[in-house]
Amino acid sequence: MTKKIAILNGPNLNLLGEREPEVYGTQTLSDIEQLCRNEGSRLGLDIDFHQTNGEGQLVDLIQEARKNADGVILNAGAYSHTSVAIFDALKILNVPIIEVHLSNPFQREDFRHYSFVSQAAKGVICGLGAQGYRLALAAIKDLLD
Amino acid sequence: MTKKIAILNGPNLNLLGEREPEVYGTQTLSDIEQLCRNEGSRLGLDIDFHQTNGEGQLVDLIQEARKNADGVILNAGAYSHTSVAIFDALKILNVPIIEVHLSNPFQREDFRHYSFVSQAAKGVICGLGAQGYRLALAAIKDLLD
Amino acid sequence: MTKKIAILNGPNLNLLGEREPEVYGTQTLSDIEQLCRNEGSRLGLDIDFHQTNGEGQLVDLIQEARKNADGVILNAGAYSHTSVAIFDALKILNVPIIEVHLSNPFQREDFRHYSFVSQAAKGVICGLGAQGYRLALAAIKDLLD
Amino acid sequence: MTKKIAILNGPNLNLLGEREPEVYGTQTLSDIEQLCRNEGSRLGLDIDFHQTNGEGQLVDLIQEARKNADGVILNAGAYSHTSVAIFDALKILNVPIIEVHLSNPFQREDFRHYSFVSQAAKGVICGLGAQGYRLALAAIKDLLD
Amino acid sequence: MTKKIAILNGPNLNLLGEREPEVYGTQTLSDIEQLCRNEGSRLGLDIDFHQTNGEGQLVDLIQEARKNADGVILNAGAYSHTSVAIFDALKILNVPIIEVHLSNPFQREDFRHYSFVSQAAKGVICGLGAQGYRLALAAIKDLLD
Amino acid sequence: MTKKIAILNGPNLNLLGEREPEVYGTQTLSDIEQLCRNEGSRLGLDIDFHQTNGEGQLVDLIQEARKNADGVILNAGAYSHTSVAIFDALKILNVPIIEVHLSNPFQREDFRHYSFVSQAAKGVICGLGAQGYRLALAAIKDLLD
Amino acid sequence: MTKKIAILNGPNLNLLGEREPEVYGTQTLSDIEQLCRNEGSRLGLDIDFHQTNGEGQLVDLIQEARKNADGVILNAGAYSHTSVAIFDALKILNVPIIEVHLSNPFQREDFRHYSFVSQAAKGVICGLGAQGYRLALAAIKDLLD
Amino acid sequence: MTKKIAILNGPNLNLLGEREPEVYGTQTLSDIEQLCRNEGSRLGLDIDFHQTNGEGQLVDLIQEARKNADGVILNAGAYSHTSVAIFDALKILNVPIIEVHLSNPFQREDFRHYSFVSQAAKGVICGLGAQGYRLALAAIKDLLD
Amino acid sequence: MTKKIAILNGPNLNLLGEREPEVYGTQTLSDIEQLCRNEGSRLGLDIDFHQTNGEGQLVDLIQEARKNADGVILNAGAYSHTSVAIFDALKILNVPIIEVHLSNPFQREDFRHYSFVSQAAKGVICGLGAQGYRLALAAIKDLLD
Amino acid sequence: MTKKIAILNGPNLNLLGEREPEVYGTQTLSDIEQLCRNEGSRLGLDIDFHQTNGEGQLVDLIQEARKNADGVILNAGAYSHTSVAIFDALKILNVPIIEVHLSNPFQREDFRHYSFVSQAAKGVICGLGAQGYRLALAAIKDLLD
Amino acid sequence: MTKKIAILNGPNLNLLGEREPEVYGTQTLSDIEQLCRNEGSRLGLDIDFHQTNGEGQLVDLIQEARKNADGVILNAGAYSHTSVAIFDALKILNVPIIEVHLSNPFQREDFRHYSFVSQAAKGVICGLGAQGYRLALAAIKDLLD
Amino acid sequence: MTKKIAILNGPNLNLLGEREPEVYGTQTLSDIEQLCRNEGSRLGLDIDFHQTNGEGQLVDLIQEARKNADGVILNAGAYSHTSVAIFDALKILNVPIIEVHLSNPFQREDFRHYSFVSQAAKGVICGLGAQGYRLALAAIKDLLD
Repeated sequence: MTKKIAILNGPNLNLLGEREPEVYGTQTLSDIEQLCRNEGSRLGLDIDFHQTNGEGQLVDLIQEARKNADGVILNAGAYSHTSVAIFDALKILNVPIIEVHLSNPFQREDFRHYSFVSQAAKGVICGLGAQGYRLALAAIKDLLD
Repeated sequence: MTKKIAILNGPNLNLLGEREPEVYGTQTLSDIEQLCRNEGSRLGLDIDFHQTNGEGQLVDLIQEARKNADGVILNAGAYSHTSVAIFDALKILNVPIIEVHLSNPFQREDFRHYSFVSQAAKGVICGLGAQGYRLALAAIKDLLD
Repeated sequence: MTKKIAILNGPNLNLLGEREPEVYGTQTLSDIEQLCRNEGSRLGLDIDFHQTNGEGQLVDLIQEARKNADGVILNAGAYSHTSVAIFDALKILNVPIIEVHLSNPFQREDFRHYSFVSQAAKGVICGLGAQGYRLALAAIKDLLD
Repeated sequence: MTKKIAILNGPNLNLLGEREPEVYGTQTLSDIEQLCRNEGSRLGLDIDFHQTNGEGQLVDLIQEARKNADGVILNAGAYSHTSVAIFDALKILNVPIIEVHLSNPFQREDFRHYSFVSQAAKGVICGLGAQGYRLALAAIKDLLD
Repeated sequence: MTKKIAILNGPNLNLLGEREPEVYGTQTLSDIEQLCRNEGSRLGLDIDFHQTNGEGQLVDLIQEARKNADGVILNAGAYSHTSVAIFDALKILNVPIIEVHLSNPFQREDFRHYSFVSQAAKGVICGLGAQGYRLALAAIKDLLD
Repeated sequence: MTKKIAILNGPNLNLLGEREPEVYGTQTLSDIEQLCRNEGSRLGLDIDFHQTNGEGQLVDLIQEARKNADGVILNAGAYSHTSVAIFDALKILNVPIIEVHLSNPFQREDFRHYSFVSQAAKGVICGLGAQGYRLALAAIKDLLD
Repeated sequence: MTKKIAILNGPNLNLLGEREPEVYGTQTLSDIEQLCRNEGSRLGLDIDFHQTNGEGQLVDLIQEARKNADGVILNAGAYSHTSVAIFDALKILNVPIIEVHLSNPFQREDFRHYSFVSQAAKGVICGLGAQGYRLALAAIKDLLD
Repeated sequence: MTKKIAILNGPNLNLLGEREPEVYGTQTLSDIEQLCRNEGSRLGLDIDFHQTNGEGQLVDLIQEARKNADGVILNAGAYSHTSVAIFDALKILNVPIIEVHLSNPFQREDFRHYSFVSQAAKGVICGLGAQGYRLALAAIKDLLD
Repeated sequence: MTKKIAILNGPNLNLLGEREPEVYGTQTLSDIEQLCRNEGSRLGLDIDFHQTNGEGQLVDLIQEARKNADGVILNAGAYSHTSVAIFDALKILNVPIIEVHLSNPFQREDFRHYSFVSQAAKGVICGLGAQGYRLALAAIKDLLD
Repeated sequence: MTKKIAILNGPNLNLLGEREPEVYGTQTLSDIEQLCRNEGSRLGLDIDFHQTNGEGQLVDLIQEARKNADGVILNAGAYSHTSVAIFDALKILNVPIIEVHLSNPFQREDFRHYSFVSQAAKGVICGLGAQGYRLALAAIKDLLD
Repeated sequence: MTKKIAILNGPNLNLLGEREPEVYGTQTLSDIEQLCRNEGSRLGLDIDFHQTNGEGQLVDLIQEARKNADGVILNAGAYSHTSVAIFDALKILNVPIIEVHLSNPFQREDFRHYSFVSQAAKGVICGLGAQGYRLALAAIKDLLD
Repeated sequence: MTKKIAILNGPNLNLLGEREPEVYGTQTLSDIEQLCRNEGSRLGLDIDFHQTNGEGQLVDLIQEARKNADGVILNAGAYSHTSVAIFDALKILNVPIIEVHLSNPFQREDFRHYSFVSQAAKGVICGLGAQGYRLALAAIKDLLD
């Protein structure tokens, strides 16, 4: 049966393309969703793609992924650095989790150097822009096989 | 007139029983609600029982308790450690507040050792699993008498 | 064309007047809204006034201001001190931002001494109660001219 | 056979009732002992009640409890915050330990926010005055059953 | 009787207009003095305007304001961040104090994030350039009425 | 009636004269006791002079002073820097307390720079050798008059 | 012309397969080299593969890559966390750099949470075992196109 | 020949009696000067009494004391906590130095817990109000004999 | 004349063999005493062997060793990490001191990484179980020769 | 036209030769002034040589150098480590600045390891005694050519 | 078969006898090697003795010991405090490791108080000079038996 | 006899001229070597000039200088900030050491603000580019005379 991958995006990622393009590039979140769907097709994976600005809603989405996804790709944006609630939600998941960041947080402000998501994820990919999502799908495909 | 106690539960507590059972035990949140309702009956207290994954919604629930509850039992979960907003909401309450944690946070990760809720609550009970709620009801009964 | 100013208020500010009046004064948020509308009229500015207890919703409101406001006055309350998500949302705005606090946070608990909003705002006004909003409107008027 | 519970109290608790009554209440340690004995009778538990001002003597008492008690309730007072020796003694015990504090240490000086006892105890109850001992007995009864 | 406001300026503010204009703007301190005198006339306030490079002399000026001013606007410049002596002098004043900074110190070096003046002032206004002085006069007028 | 002053000495002070004489001088604790008794006679004060190496015993001595002394002079030695228990015992006293140190702890190891006793004492005298006790008696005499 | 990618490996990576297999997996460094060569062939990239236990030698290898490589994949192992010299060498490179770690360093000891390499690399991939190298090659291919 | 003692006072001490009387008492600096002159007469010591708000001027006064005083009593006020320049000036003195504080700085704000003067003085007396000066004169008399 | 070595043991070491055997081994303190006596015989050294749970009593024992021992072997247990009083007592000794720990404290909790005893001892031996005592005797024999 | 170099010296440097000669050498400040004048002649530079104990006066001197000097050599003494005001004054200068220290501050107390002057100066020379001034003149000559 | 013990020495130990003899004693590394060989003979152990100034080379030596030694005695000198690479190499070893230091690092500079080697070694012996090696051989013999 | 000066250069200095020219200037290391040889001729000093990327090799070079040089000029580059091994090697030298940095490290990343070399060197010269070497030669010439 086709595996389903939940790709979850946190706050302000809906503004990609408009937001600090020198940091995040000019692709919009729809572009990334399309890129993921294409890659998903290629790899034989179903894609469930979401964005929310709310921490609690991101917890909800992770809890739902727990019921109906075989893997999770998470770009929790700003909540990566502050949310114990998301960390706790991830700890309950028993499918592979890959953390993705478009930019390289280690070269930005100090408060972006710590990620609660990194404490719970299998793998971390950052600094590679939209391509990071594609690599994450490849990685998760590999882990599921 | 019967006193009403709001029992408020924060993020991921809806998954109790499934989440790290070696840490949190096998009882579900419904089990705990039932246990609280039974104890409430025994003590002559009305029980208002809620759970939410959202920080803002937990603030909303506390603000509502301010209007119609005579005491609050709060297990704010992960938000205990990060939420100034919940701390501020609790400071406005003028009824007794008891903080409850199922596990003993002092024996877990460092970021669980500080609780904003503890800064605002009358009493703190942790590490005693579901029974902690029952003791909190007894304590609040005692404070109200 | 008349300029529009979004005035956004964070958690627990809906309880102004009831909450620690010795710290926050006795004016309610409606009083402040009215005061802002009056001052807006005087200065020839349209006022968009909101309050929410949710961090994600505050991010939503800032994103909306990005589309239809010429300036933002933000009292993010407790989220000032904890929210990277709000900081990120503010960084995407390209209109003037003034941060307002009713009380002087530097004379309160240590965790109120750092503000993510201050990292992104043009100006900061604090400790002057409801009048702070009026000064902020004057300042933003001045910046827009 | 009737279970025995050792209730051990640390430095300055012999002055309860006289010491900062606004923090610790007006009950004396004898009052608390009596309250515990009554509750013990009710629950069918034998009570062994001690107080000492000495750190080494508190270690001695814990070591003795190791031989002849089925549960320990410990209010180590000031030593909670400084004593590795007591922590080590507690780690050797293989019966349930409940830590009790009359006041809520998290709302007092910074040096009372860390407790070595919390690192070793099953549960922690604080801020509920003398009633905390009664709840601790109920908790320990529950754990032993 | 007309109220008198002392406006006190600390080290290097005499070089305004020449000093890092991208940070502090092109207005000179005389421009600001004139702007304050105009605003003072409008509000019916007498203006006492001083600048000094010396910490002890700033303490002297604050002590004098204690005798003959009804309000103080203080831009202590670099001494804001280092001077306990100025903090102590301000604590003795019993008239309203408003702290002003031309730039937003929270977006500059770390050592500018702490201000002893903020610990003693009623209100803080920063990042709004010369206009900050005008707003401070309006605020002080309001506080005196 | 003659006032009684308890002069309490902590660990290792029994070895004065032998211990690092370049730091503590060549006078023995008996010399100091005699000096205190002489000064007591001169000032019309009864002297109760004790030394102990035990923290709990120092707590006991402070608790006794609570019952039968009109003032306390305390050189808690090493316990000054580590004992919350002694701090708690001192907080219960309602007579004047003067802390004395023979050497100047601020010029020694870092761990001697913090004193729990200083948090509870009225006055602190250090670095003046045995004469510090005499000055403390003069000070306490003055406070009692 | 075919692009050349230098893949550089730091201390103890020569023992892969033997070293803590539960952390690093059972593949040897030769396996990884082969995997990289295969992937390089597939992507049309030449592979230059090295390992050294020496910090200075790793600096040498990076300086050489500067002359004759079009991209660098670096797993600096332990030196990631301690070597300013490697950071400096990387800053001189003007080709894309991808940092790879087999395990997820954020779930290991604290001293593995900071990486000097992350401060200089374009992208970071960790926790994905040997597959991380393959993804890094894909990423670098993408960046070069 | 009569010995001369320089008694030097730092910023804001000229306002004694008016400044926070609950902290510093109601005596003025003139009262203290008179008290010192009386005690000097009694002990056969000449008194040189100064106050200044300036750090550099306090350095000047210490340098003068170096030439014509046999002992120094220094209450450097706020500069105690911040002035390396005063510390350096004191290190050049080769006569006894006694530091005096009217209040007990260890029970006030954190930034008053460190004193550069304590690093250079022979003895420290604090918390004993104006009497502290008299004890300091007695101590210095003793040291000079 | 035969040299005497005092072997002093701190809190909870009386429970050796029963206490966390996976950390401390299965030998009892009597076993270690016997092992030391045997080794003492072999080396021609008299052994004085003590254990106490009290910090003050350990200070007493060190002070006694000062009078009648030619060398000290000290396993201060938990007090190693917290006791300035023991540090002071050791500084007065003028015979060789060897610190022994059964386990390797550097691989345990952070609060076991600092030892006041290490600041005063000649040598430190840890992690070698009961054999550490034997090596310490050999070392002290060597130092005395 | 001959270039003018301002050589500015901070607190306590007027006592050179008398102050801790083992740290600062036996040359007086006049000796250093003469040495600088000689070297100035040799290099064709006019020398403006000043010393002051006042922070504000040092700011004044730097502001004057701004108007009439082509280079500045600054030994700010103790103010190097504490003065943001001097840092700000230096940032306004647009001529080369060389910081000089007679001793090597990195081998002295911790509070001498940070220098605000180093944050603003072109070059730093320390530990070379009076010769440091001569080297600074050579360096500044070089920078001006 | 005779067991082989690798004794590995880090940077600057080749200069023993010449280097700070008051800290390290007058014995050369050859003396220590001879002492180890003698002790090895006595205990029936083969000795492999090496010294290197290079961190990478020390990693190489540890990796070799992994193949052909039955125990390792390591004095990593300065690298003890800075080398994660050596820590990683030691973690791969499955033979007993004893860390030796000639001096007692806990009484020297702060940066010598942390040792990565202590995190990986079975036992630690320090402060006992060349004899420490002999004790380490005895300890390792004991562990191998 | 002609004095010999060892000029030792650490990692990445071989790339001078190519590496971040806006920080390090456009001169190559050969240019600096030539400049040093010329200045050496002028001052009558023999020059021994080396560069290495290895920490251990830099230790080797310092140990060799110990045997055959009369002074050392050391630019340890990145190892300045991390190498205890180099610090130890320098402590064994008994000839003058001057530390040189081309750029001013105090205006760069935080990890460049601490230098182990500064703890051991006589003098420090930084921020003056290649000229710093020439000044260092002049300084060392002066120290040797």
